[in-house]
Amino acid sequence: MRKGEVTKQHIINKSAELFNQKGYAGCSISEIMDATGLKKGGIYRFFSSKDEIALESFAYAVEMVGEHFTRAMEGNKTAIEKIISLFDVYADVVHHPPLRGGCPLLNTAVESDDTHPFLREQALAAMNGFLATIQSILSEGIENKELRPDIDRTSLASFIFANLEGSIMASKLEGDNQHVAFGKEHLFTYLRTLRIQN
Amino acid sequence: MRKGEVTKQHIINKSAELFNQKGYAGCSISEIMDATGLKKGGIYRFFSSKDEIALESFAYAVEMVGEHFTRAMEGNKTAIEKIISLFDVYADVVHHPPLRGGCPLLNTAVESDDTHPFLREQALAAMNGFLATIQSILSEGIENKELRPDIDRTSLASFIFANLEGSIMASKLEGDNQHVAFGKEHLFTYLRTLRIQN
Repeated sequence: MRKGEVTKQHIINKSAELFNQKGYAGCSISEIMDATGLKKGGIYRFFSSKDEIALESFAYAVEMVGEHFTRAMEGNKTAIEKIISLFDVYADVVHHPPLRGGCPLLNTAVESDDTHPFLREQALAAMNGFLATIQSILSEGIENKELRPDIDRTSLASFIFANLEGSIMASKLEGDNQHVAFGKEHLFTYLRTLRIQN
Repeated sequence: MRKGEVTKQHIINKSAELFNQKGYAGCSISEIMDATGLKKGGIYRFFSSKDEIALESFAYAVEMVGEHFTRAMEGNKTAIEKIISLFDVYADVVHHPPLRGGCPLLNTAVESDDTHPFLREQALAAMNGFLATIQSILSEGIENKELRPDIDRTSLASFIFANLEGSIMASKLEGDNQHVAFGKEHLFTYLRTLRIQN
């Protein structure tokens, strides 16, 4: 990487953390300057606006968390194990989330849905990508005769996703990882009722 | 109500809607002035700070949504029916949520968890109140021999709550009520596996 690219990535990394904790509206350019140790000109050399920093930071956050999900699923053979392992990425959301501040998709979705169309669109694309991943794991499970063929993959993927995000929200709010653990446990019990062999 | 109380309630109603759509950080006093038609002095006659408006608006929002939940449960006899009816409050979250902007608990939790200790505390109290309500419905279901006595009420209430909030988040983001409907459907199927008579 050239020096300019290193600096740009440094701004993105720090901004992603800041935005994920304080929100886009709650985070100013001067806070990004503090966090990066750069002057305003040093930041605007790479980005034309705060919105552009927000978009690139969110794209980075989604990619980074996506890699955590991919790694968590590795080594798991059944569809149910793969899906359940997604919860492990946020097992310690209180102290060690993949990105400080919790789930960037949850945070960005809730902040942007009524107010920031450009961010909302990116958050929606990220959600649809995640839903498609879950759906394809379910398809695999059906093909492998692990899961019942009459499962509605669209609605089940939505249910799995909602569980994960809702439990992250509750654990972050309480400062206690128990809700993510509860979500994992009940979802596991439910998914087992959808196996061909119960 | 005296005229002063009417004005104060008017500020709270409008601020609750604004905060629920734009967030606390994303909403300025001048927007509250615009929405209420009041001057700054007319607002600060009743509140000492924006934080105080935020706290009172959130308390109002939680109470108002709580009334919707209570009404939704009325007329339902079984614990499962009562729990499932909670989803009806947000069945049309895209166009007609109880409060514009979606679920105030979700919005406030996600915004405040890392940054606003005073709001976070109130959001946590609201979540715990809601969890306690769900737990007591489950207890009723166990006493009435509808639900299995070995159910862990704490973890099941958390799972139900996470589902509702996560599905609201997804529906709001996509602008499509389907996720709340999916959540309701799968939760209903799961809860039926926890009945004494399957």
